[in-house]
Amino acid sequence: MNIAIQGILGSFHHIVANQYFGDTIKLTECLSFDEMPRLINSNQVDGAVMAIENTLAGSILSNYALINEFDLKIQGEVHLPIQHNLMALEGQLLSDIKEVWSHPMAILQCRKFFRDYPEIRLVEAADTAEVAKQIREKQLMGIAAIASKKAAEIFGLNIIESKIQTRKQNYTRFFVLKKNNGNIVIPKVINKASLRFVTHHQTGSLSDVLRIFANFNMNLSKIQSLPIIDDPWNYAFFVDVIFDNYQQFQNAIEKVKENVSELKILGEYQQSKRKYAS
Amino acid sequence: MNIAIQGILGSFHHIVANQYFGDTIKLTECLSFDEMPRLINSNQVDGAVMAIENTLAGSILSNYALINEFDLKIQGEVHLPIQHNLMALEGQLLSDIKEVWSHPMAILQCRKFFRDYPEIRLVEAADTAEVAKQIREKQLMGIAAIASKKAAEIFGLNIIESKIQTRKQNYTRFFVLKKNNGNIVIPKVINKASLRFVTHHQTGSLSDVLRIFANFNMNLSKIQSLPIIDDPWNYAFFVDVIFDNYQQFQNAIEKVKENVSELKILGEYQQSKRKYAS
Repeated sequence: MNIAIQGILGSFHHIVANQYFGDTIKLTECLSFDEMPRLINSNQVDGAVMAIENTLAGSILSNYALINEFDLKIQGEVHLPIQHNLMALEGQLLSDIKEVWSHPMAILQCRKFFRDYPEIRLVEAADTAEVAKQIREKQLMGIAAIASKKAAEIFGLNIIESKIQTRKQNYTRFFVLKKNNGNIVIPKVINKASLRFVTHHQTGSLSDVLRIFANFNMNLSKIQSLPIIDDPWNYAFFVDVIFDNYQQFQNAIEKVKENVSELKILGEYQQSKRKYAS
Repeated sequence: MNIAIQGILGSFHHIVANQYFGDTIKLTECLSFDEMPRLINSNQVDGAVMAIENTLAGSILSNYALINEFDLKIQGEVHLPIQHNLMALEGQLLSDIKEVWSHPMAILQCRKFFRDYPEIRLVEAADTAEVAKQIREKQLMGIAAIASKKAAEIFGLNIIESKIQTRKQNYTRFFVLKKNNGNIVIPKVINKASLRFVTHHQTGSLSDVLRIFANFNMNLSKIQSLPIIDDPWNYAFFVDVIFDNYQQFQNAIEKVKENVSELKILGEYQQSKRKYAS
């Protein structure tokens, strides 16, 4: 099995891919999320792992757009606790570090830690693990990476400070994506779905749709309104619903269809064990 | 009047500050959004301009968190069409450019343009206008900035390509922020409000709250669920509502209070002219 990930070995996407599919899969490293739809739809990979939202940074709307435009399907979800670690070559102390290179999201999540070290320059880079690799290969002194423990292990770096993210409860949610008509693994249970719908432009239309879900005993675990660029008077929504009874879900969907102008099921899958809104 | 902006003169925040307050205000340049609440609450500035969401990149949840935690109030909103321009020293051609430095959001919004120029290296920087300034001051050859037309004017750079953003309709929404008990300007009309509320954990509770808004003839222009980190079973929502009748809005708020466990009005203000969801 070949799974596309964002970043290189040791990235958080790598950790998620192994957690979902096990350790024996082949990985295809991507430099950007944009590469993933093409790889999936041309059968160069069986699926992809794509970050979709973080407790601090919010939803990555451009990734929702990729899923929607290229008609990918969500095969599953993983909530990964993100622990950021400051790492450098063996022997380097915090006082030796002049610059820290990392992904902007990682820098954002660790901002508070670095307030106590204003002399350290924060430099943005394409991938957390890629920096760890560079430090090792080029034997860079005075430079540290913010990356996963796994990256420190793979590239033989020393962790100077662990868990430096501002919020100790820092989660990123990832989607496992597949082709529209494909199936990588058969989920044991289907109890969650991600939907995109467009309501009619009239007061209360969203409330009506949500009422249908409630009437069919379904819980909302996420809702987000989206601008429709070419149609400024209408609203699109991305919604996640959780349910116990798959038949009830299907009945609700039939009813919702009558109340919206567009409806697309982005995926039906098993809810991950981490249970909170968003 | 002294207004804090993210970035330096020529940044999009600068343009918004002038659009809202006119050209005679004093500006305080900030290197990060984090600096703004302290500046406001210690009266070092009268207000701040803060990007809150973009049509492509989505909401900046960490900025919502700053507004909520430091008890700032929204004084107004501005929707700015974001036109990105590629600029360099006079005489430089596109074929001379080896590297483009810009803010990660700007790079994200122009990704498609650079697909045709894979030999150009994209380097992330703290602010769009700051790069334009550096190119000018250090007379950097082979380096281009992605920034506003205003930045090109201020720093005397030549625009090589204009409107290079992927989506021609690319808007960023900014909040004008003030102290909780302060007032920078009195809005002529109040017809929009931003709210944060926490629903009771029971099926259909969100639908019930939205039904109240509909019953009072209010339209929803944005909704977003938020994880509550320390309380994984409850949901917080950021909602924007639009109304014609301020008294109706107040009546609705009284009713909503009875149906939620927490409610905070982040601001009551005049809707900007740009009208679309999010």
